[in-house]
Amino acid sequence: MLEKIHQSIDELYPEMVEIRRYLHQHPELSFQETKTAKYIADYYEELGIPYQTGVGGNGVIATLKGTKPGKTVALRADFDALPIQDEKDVAYKSKVPGVMHACGHDGHTATLLTLAKVMKKYQAELTGTIVFLHQHAEEFAPGGAKPMIEAGALDKVDAVFGTHLWATVPLGVLQTSKKEFMAGADRFEITIQGQGGHGAYPHETKDAIVLGAEVITQFQQIVSRRVDPLETAVLTTGIFQAGNAFNVIADQAELVGTVRYFNVDVQELIMNEMEKILKGVCTSNDASYTLNYVKGYPPLINHPEGAEIVIEASKHIDEIQTAEEILPVMGGEDFSYYMMEKPGAYFFTGANKEGNPYPHHHPKFDIDEKALPIAAKTLIGAYLEYQKGNA
Amino acid sequence: MLEKIHQSIDELYPEMVEIRRYLHQHPELSFQETKTAKYIADYYEELGIPYQTGVGGNGVIATLKGTKPGKTVALRADFDALPIQDEKDVAYKSKVPGVMHACGHDGHTATLLTLAKVMKKYQAELTGTIVFLHQHAEEFAPGGAKPMIEAGALDKVDAVFGTHLWATVPLGVLQTSKKEFMAGADRFEITIQGQGGHGAYPHETKDAIVLGAEVITQFQQIVSRRVDPLETAVLTTGIFQAGNAFNVIADQAELVGTVRYFNVDVQELIMNEMEKILKGVCTSNDASYTLNYVKGYPPLINHPEGAEIVIEASKHIDEIQTAEEILPVMGGEDFSYYMMEKPGAYFFTGANKEGNPYPHHHPKFDIDEKALPIAAKTLIGAYLEYQKGNA
Amino acid sequence: MLEKIHQSIDELYPEMVEIRRYLHQHPELSFQETKTAKYIADYYEELGIPYQTGVGGNGVIATLKGTKPGKTVALRADFDALPIQDEKDVAYKSKVPGVMHACGHDGHTATLLTLAKVMKKYQAELTGTIVFLHQHAEEFAPGGAKPMIEAGALDKVDAVFGTHLWATVPLGVLQTSKKEFMAGADRFEITIQGQGGHGAYPHETKDAIVLGAEVITQFQQIVSRRVDPLETAVLTTGIFQAGNAFNVIADQAELVGTVRYFNVDVQELIMNEMEKILKGVCTSNDASYTLNYVKGYPPLINHPEGAEIVIEASKHIDEIQTAEEILPVMGGEDFSYYMMEKPGAYFFTGANKEGNPYPHHHPKFDIDEKALPIAAKTLIGAYLEYQKGNA
Amino acid sequence: MLEKIHQSIDELYPEMVEIRRYLHQHPELSFQETKTAKYIADYYEELGIPYQTGVGGNGVIATLKGTKPGKTVALRADFDALPIQDEKDVAYKSKVPGVMHACGHDGHTATLLTLAKVMKKYQAELTGTIVFLHQHAEEFAPGGAKPMIEAGALDKVDAVFGTHLWATVPLGVLQTSKKEFMAGADRFEITIQGQGGHGAYPHETKDAIVLGAEVITQFQQIVSRRVDPLETAVLTTGIFQAGNAFNVIADQAELVGTVRYFNVDVQELIMNEMEKILKGVCTSNDASYTLNYVKGYPPLINHPEGAEIVIEASKHIDEIQTAEEILPVMGGEDFSYYMMEKPGAYFFTGANKEGNPYPHHHPKFDIDEKALPIAAKTLIGAYLEYQKGNA
Repeated sequence: MLEKIHQSIDELYPEMVEIRRYLHQHPELSFQETKTAKYIADYYEELGIPYQTGVGGNGVIATLKGTKPGKTVALRADFDALPIQDEKDVAYKSKVPGVMHACGHDGHTATLLTLAKVMKKYQAELTGTIVFLHQHAEEFAPGGAKPMIEAGALDKVDAVFGTHLWATVPLGVLQTSKKEFMAGADRFEITIQGQGGHGAYPHETKDAIVLGAEVITQFQQIVSRRVDPLETAVLTTGIFQAGNAFNVIADQAELVGTVRYFNVDVQELIMNEMEKILKGVCTSNDASYTLNYVKGYPPLINHPEGAEIVIEASKHIDEIQTAEEILPVMGGEDFSYYMMEKPGAYFFTGANKEGNPYPHHHPKFDIDEKALPIAAKTLIGAYLEYQKGNA
Repeated sequence: MLEKIHQSIDELYPEMVEIRRYLHQHPELSFQETKTAKYIADYYEELGIPYQTGVGGNGVIATLKGTKPGKTVALRADFDALPIQDEKDVAYKSKVPGVMHACGHDGHTATLLTLAKVMKKYQAELTGTIVFLHQHAEEFAPGGAKPMIEAGALDKVDAVFGTHLWATVPLGVLQTSKKEFMAGADRFEITIQGQGGHGAYPHETKDAIVLGAEVITQFQQIVSRRVDPLETAVLTTGIFQAGNAFNVIADQAELVGTVRYFNVDVQELIMNEMEKILKGVCTSNDASYTLNYVKGYPPLINHPEGAEIVIEASKHIDEIQTAEEILPVMGGEDFSYYMMEKPGAYFFTGANKEGNPYPHHHPKFDIDEKALPIAAKTLIGAYLEYQKGNA
Repeated sequence: MLEKIHQSIDELYPEMVEIRRYLHQHPELSFQETKTAKYIADYYEELGIPYQTGVGGNGVIATLKGTKPGKTVALRADFDALPIQDEKDVAYKSKVPGVMHACGHDGHTATLLTLAKVMKKYQAELTGTIVFLHQHAEEFAPGGAKPMIEAGALDKVDAVFGTHLWATVPLGVLQTSKKEFMAGADRFEITIQGQGGHGAYPHETKDAIVLGAEVITQFQQIVSRRVDPLETAVLTTGIFQAGNAFNVIADQAELVGTVRYFNVDVQELIMNEMEKILKGVCTSNDASYTLNYVKGYPPLINHPEGAEIVIEASKHIDEIQTAEEILPVMGGEDFSYYMMEKPGAYFFTGANKEGNPYPHHHPKFDIDEKALPIAAKTLIGAYLEYQKGNA
Repeated sequence: MLEKIHQSIDELYPEMVEIRRYLHQHPELSFQETKTAKYIADYYEELGIPYQTGVGGNGVIATLKGTKPGKTVALRADFDALPIQDEKDVAYKSKVPGVMHACGHDGHTATLLTLAKVMKKYQAELTGTIVFLHQHAEEFAPGGAKPMIEAGALDKVDAVFGTHLWATVPLGVLQTSKKEFMAGADRFEITIQGQGGHGAYPHETKDAIVLGAEVITQFQQIVSRRVDPLETAVLTTGIFQAGNAFNVIADQAELVGTVRYFNVDVQELIMNEMEKILKGVCTSNDASYTLNYVKGYPPLINHPEGAEIVIEASKHIDEIQTAEEILPVMGGEDFSYYMMEKPGAYFFTGANKEGNPYPHHHPKFDIDEKALPIAAKTLIGAYLEYQKGNA
């Protein structure tokens, strides 16, 4: 049956690309992906596979029951985009100013939809039940995974598998881990309240931009001096916004960013040190601040057997030359919530486009679409392996 | 005649306030003040005073010829507003989001219009010619004064007087100077080009926010260590804008600000040191930058006789208790261009509103409207003194 | 025989303490430890064990041949002290101002000397040859291990074992690793050359202290932003020295410090980034610099069988409750050179003194002397295990 | 008589140079200048002019009574040196390592001694009384002027004149001011107490060098952002000292420096802001600090008539081409205390040595010795003018 499935996937490659490019041109930000959700639902409608919409937000779940009894396995694809201006010069460039599928979720969705079309064809021969789990809002904590789980998405599910197309890994390489795979990822929003005034009278003000610069500078010390050098930590401020006239001293600065870690003690330490630095800078300047620290996705920890199943599945896919166990990566993923509930594993499908060196979240990010059928084959391969193992 | 004029100004106080409040609710940004210009023109139309519109941009000039021969004296009022959100809780609060008359130009305009109405009444007794010079775009270099002069605004003018309602000076106080009165004011725009990327992979990027913070921090040294302590200099960065997603490392930071000085050598030094700091920070980080340094208004230097005329005029105004010569102030003013062409003087009319401590350009800025008739009396007083002196 | 040896070690405990306290009061800086070397040599002289002095500097090697053929195993103790002022309030406090055994090398030496005395007693029953390797200058790269090896210290040696008394680990705990155990440790010396002058005329100078502060601040970014967060790196500036009069602007600042790493790519990256930051800061300030980067001890990597032998040996020592494999520690050790030449292992002997929380290199550092006999028993235990394994 | 005096001064030029060079080779630090004081006293002893030693410390006062009644006028020369290493390549280079007459006080003393020798010769013709006031410790607050005044140095004095040889002003130029002439000058000593430890374990310490660098960086904001730009202020940290081993994290940093100002409100503001910054930095880092702020010399404000007398005197000296009134200079001077008690004036005697561009307090500082007779002539000229004016 595997061979037939592979062949069907290959036959549908043009449609896969078409879907991916359509979505690439019509990206939607996290929690606002209503049109994408409708697109997905319409697809299942047309396939005649039963589905639910509005699961924990914009989530969509379709369920394909096989004729032979077996386990229920969810395959997950996320479908939100990022607030980045697409700077690629391609026909399928984003049509939405400032919004872009710069992380490959368009490809995830195209992969899973096309796989559903293929498997619908083989429903009669299918053991167990496939849950096609289309998750919204992966890019923005608290994310879509948690509310989808709370809405019952995993209630009858025995295991979960998912993949990320990975732009910096060559085509034909699969990467996973039997333990920690992706970092914990938090979000913070800081407002520093100085006192505005005329640009020529600094002594009558508390310059929020100078204060913000000081905070950014001191934040570097958290990783460089306060976290144990043997631990892993990142503190990135992704947004610095202050002032709106060249000759008016800004009274407020907003800093928004992310913290990454693998160890909750490090998470606590960073939170405390951020607070201390903000207190200190405000003490030095008679200013005040608010810190809204939103704990985000916990570290993603694969189940060892889940990872083994993925590796086993990969051996039966011609296009995969290597399946590697790698060191954990720093990017957060709310797939971690699934792994806290059910067995399974997450893996990267190499998708590097020749000549395109840009990483995820870059304005020129792109993927090699030939990775889509590979991802589809691995996901269904893991499904089938899992059924075997539990037969 | 002075007494009659004062009486008429006092009688028109309610209209003065009404005009000021109307303008306060309908502020327009520099170079975009077309509706305000139309409002002014319509007013002169109704008064039957001949006027010109579109002078050097949105400038409006009205000319009232007396019946007795004399000098031609321009009285100047500026009429643009600022990109600040009005945070006052008053009935006449700005109706335009993010735009506000936070510098009193609404009051300047109301003062000059009402004065025109008064003087129209006394045209038959008037010696010389009054030029009502309504200038656009004072808040944003290159400003409106220069193009208005280039368009001929001062061609037949012998002298120019102007005032600024000054919110931090008590009602009844007039301030001026016989020499340097207001600083030179330049604008700069810096773009720092780092390299963006995923927020969890700082080592693959050049974080433009960290770079921008470094630039802000090092800029402090220009005034603290590199300018002669006996000189006066201000370097304010009013805008810091970078990044638009919490988990994406910003590839660009924009810094926009102003430099103030009284000495062109200091201006040159600051420009050079800014360039050196930018070069250094970019060297440390393999990054690049652009610096667009726009030389703005030169220092405003009053003519000594002009200032004396203003002081003399103030003695005949009951509401003025004190006329002070003060140290120069840091805020730039394109009234400086008029003083480079013609004699005259600029002065501040105390306009502090009881209980309101907020300086110019503050979101809660306001003025005591009782300052408007005082400003009107001083301007016309200076006009009459000047005619005397030249009789 | 092990039992007898243990008993003899326990009997000599008072002498062990006496030697350690004598050395504690007479510490000598790295490469200057001539009196300590003489003390050691005299001890062997008195024992009648043949020894060599001046090995690769101040190193001393004594050789005890057993009567039964076997392997030659070196046991290493280092004997230099640190430039730290002793702030303990104890009878055996350092008598040398500014110099202190703040790292326990006095204890290492006392342990090895006493062990030699014990083993001399059992020479007749001894299998193989013990090399007592007393190494000078561990605290200051390029260290004593390298020249001692070059001078032939390991020529006939089959394996090397060594220990560090570890003040923050409880008595009765032994720690080691089967792979990376201690970090690579480099030293750097930076001179920043500004331009001095009168403290009241900053604009005529280039303030080396402000420049140095900038360098320190930017150095934080190397670890926080430029090194891969999954790698381990430390950049510490231990000395900042500039200026010698309160009212004279310093023309030079000296920064001296250390870099720690486990991966040579990280070492290269840090060197390059330091250079770039120095270039950038000097560009911003028309200043100049020199950077003398001295590559120090490479990472210490234990041999797995060596570590197993130590763990096995520890099981036969009553005072040891736990033998742990631990994560690598950041402190550099030139024991790494021995491990690059011969099999063996390095381990920590828990030596925490009740109530004393101070870490190594702290002015109040101290150890529990009861750790000395434990160290001696483990070293000789490892020796005997190694003979067994190779029998 | 003036002509004769000038001639005698010129004749004694070789001795003047000899004295200056002797003192240049034997500099002594402030409050330690006992040998210099003895040298001065011996000189008066030999001249037969009565003198007092130990006045308010190492001060020496000699008194030459004229035969004709008149006013008593003090002429002041200071005689301490600086903790700077002489880097000049001249025969008369300092013989004391690390100590140097880098401010010209050797020349002041040579000038006054030689003038005394000359005036002794004309005692019979002298009107009034000359007080030769040799002051110790000008370079180090609280200075020598205050204790000398408290010891009665000015008790019978009617006026005081003094000069500073000024290396950056051309020979033949005299500079003075009728109002503020030299800035107020304070001294501060800061100790930042972090927590030391091993250089490889930053997370277990509070790195005093990183903390000190932060303080230095934030101090820049006091002048750049918090002091009114129209005011004058300097904050210089002249000494930064921390750590004494490359691999030990420093637990303490010492910052020593100076503050200059002309307005006591600015002095207060700077003190407060320094305190706030120290509090803030320590809050950010759980560290502590001490700030010892020693108010130093108040601003030196000349008396207008005193300055006029100096200018008048200068007209009768052939070597002086120009006598300028200048803007105040930033360097502090405890001559200010004399001006708070008695009329008089302080002035600069141009002493630029051709080809030597180095400012005061520079390791290569030097003066043109031809300035010494000019200084002597101006001092005695002021004395004589003052007698005239008061005849």
